[in-house]
Amino acid sequence: MGYQKPTIRDIIAAQKNVYQHLNPTPLYNYPTLSELVGTSTWIKHENHQPVGAFKVRGGLNMAANLTDEERRNGLFTASTGNHGQSIAYAARAYGIKAVVAVPEGANPGKVAAMRGLGAEVIFHGADFDEAREWVKRITEEKGGKFVGPTDEPLIHGVGTYGLEILNDLPSVDTIIVPVGAGSGVCGTAIVAKAINEEIEIIAVQSAQAPAMKLSWESGVLKEAEMKTIAEGLATRVPFENTQRIMREYVDDFILVDDEDIKSAIPLLLEHTHNLVEEAGAASLAAALQVADRLTNRDVVLVVSGGNLSMQNLKNVIA
Amino acid sequence: MGYQKPTIRDIIAAQKNVYQHLNPTPLYNYPTLSELVGTSTWIKHENHQPVGAFKVRGGLNMAANLTDEERRNGLFTASTGNHGQSIAYAARAYGIKAVVAVPEGANPGKVAAMRGLGAEVIFHGADFDEAREWVKRITEEKGGKFVGPTDEPLIHGVGTYGLEILNDLPSVDTIIVPVGAGSGVCGTAIVAKAINEEIEIIAVQSAQAPAMKLSWESGVLKEAEMKTIAEGLATRVPFENTQRIMREYVDDFILVDDEDIKSAIPLLLEHTHNLVEEAGAASLAAALQVADRLTNRDVVLVVSGGNLSMQNLKNVIA
Repeated sequence: MGYQKPTIRDIIAAQKNVYQHLNPTPLYNYPTLSELVGTSTWIKHENHQPVGAFKVRGGLNMAANLTDEERRNGLFTASTGNHGQSIAYAARAYGIKAVVAVPEGANPGKVAAMRGLGAEVIFHGADFDEAREWVKRITEEKGGKFVGPTDEPLIHGVGTYGLEILNDLPSVDTIIVPVGAGSGVCGTAIVAKAINEEIEIIAVQSAQAPAMKLSWESGVLKEAEMKTIAEGLATRVPFENTQRIMREYVDDFILVDDEDIKSAIPLLLEHTHNLVEEAGAASLAAALQVADRLTNRDVVLVVSGGNLSMQNLKNVIA
Repeated sequence: MGYQKPTIRDIIAAQKNVYQHLNPTPLYNYPTLSELVGTSTWIKHENHQPVGAFKVRGGLNMAANLTDEERRNGLFTASTGNHGQSIAYAARAYGIKAVVAVPEGANPGKVAAMRGLGAEVIFHGADFDEAREWVKRITEEKGGKFVGPTDEPLIHGVGTYGLEILNDLPSVDTIIVPVGAGSGVCGTAIVAKAINEEIEIIAVQSAQAPAMKLSWESGVLKEAEMKTIAEGLATRVPFENTQRIMREYVDDFILVDDEDIKSAIPLLLEHTHNLVEEAGAASLAAALQVADRLTNRDVVLVVSGGNLSMQNLKNVIA
């Protein structure tokens, strides 16, 4: 049997797992931001999630779909960022164990946040790949569930924010979504195209980490140099399953420069009074880049997360 | 007939007006913030409202309760801040006119935000009191509804966040609420005490604007010097109706120094990744001041709003 792409039915089914633990996030129109972009502009506030990022929706759906054995033995993953916090949050919600491997020297603030959520955080290896390979082996030994960044239950879970967008703004014309591994844009695009194939889906990545864009464009998985400051967009090796979905459903893929992302953060602070992390600000940077194409359209910018560090905040508003 | 204090029934009745236009805001526990305060600490995220502050709940309830004549002639108020944006938002939601008087030299960003929401903003007078007296006269001429900062329908509306707190965290022991004119603490206290009179309500004001605290303490309305940087706490002349309610229901009233408010803003940025305005940060400043009294209690900090200006953000994180 070939690969079965997720459908809107999978995402609809994930709602019961997601809304057992989370409420929908707001979709707000900000008049002065709309003026800046030059068209009616809405923010999908995934930064309002309890761990500050959309991924928690996926983690909760993953945790709800474990076998009894996996549930007994726990969730295992590797992450230095929002993914790890999301898995920790979901595991706590279900009263199961979470083990998160991080490389030596991982950000102490993020480690503290994961531990605060009850996760066992283990330092292993010099970089992320070493930590991941190690925790994969541990997972097999322990009989738990290893969670990769684009596993289908995650896509089904995160797609629920796409349903919320369509519920709140049926007239939406364009949705702009930041892309790291691609689960967010896939969930959104599956929902939007199933409901109204005229809705334009624009993916955004940093020009300093263009692997997903280059792969989408060429139809072949291509690694690329990864130097972006935006942790949520920092993909060096593209993912096959999300690429398949994106090739079918994504209409355009924009690269924004890290400098434009840095400029978008203070604009969001000023016009929406929300702290937004680099990846989350990429959707506004993209909208400003293609503003002339967006006139008279109802545009939704997905703010995928808000976990900006104090140091980076200081840098961008200095 | 004497003054009838609002009851929980009024607040329950306001829910239908509030939730026609807003969703409940989250109440989140942040593990590293709990560690900092030394007890289980929850944030009530009124900064997640569409205009960035709790007051919009009151504005919507006010707009829903107008007479036909008032509805035809519109809402009139004076404000340089969140109150004006809330009235503008509510008026737009009901398709009625909002007129907001501001003194000459009012903050252009806030004027733009109110105009963006469709309000007619009129500059009049050298200070806030002049603007208010003028717009009161205009309201009478036009047959509209003048909205003062502590009008009962506002208290009923804002009290709905108190119901949300009790729904989400029935075990709450202490709720700390910033006080400007007092509508927020009154709504919260009415709800909390009606449901469980053991819940402790702590009001907070700036030591640089102590009129409400001095009046509460003495039982007599006392004006006081007003020099705080926290716009949402900047009350010089206390309000009789909210004072009556506070005397009955508020257990303690803490003054925090503006310097402690300024320190609390970066702490909230770091531990919750939320931008919080000065008034909203006062509840954390108070919790840190009385942390030894809070041990082993479930503490809710009301973050009343998030509308911090870029200049003030730069100042506090410099």
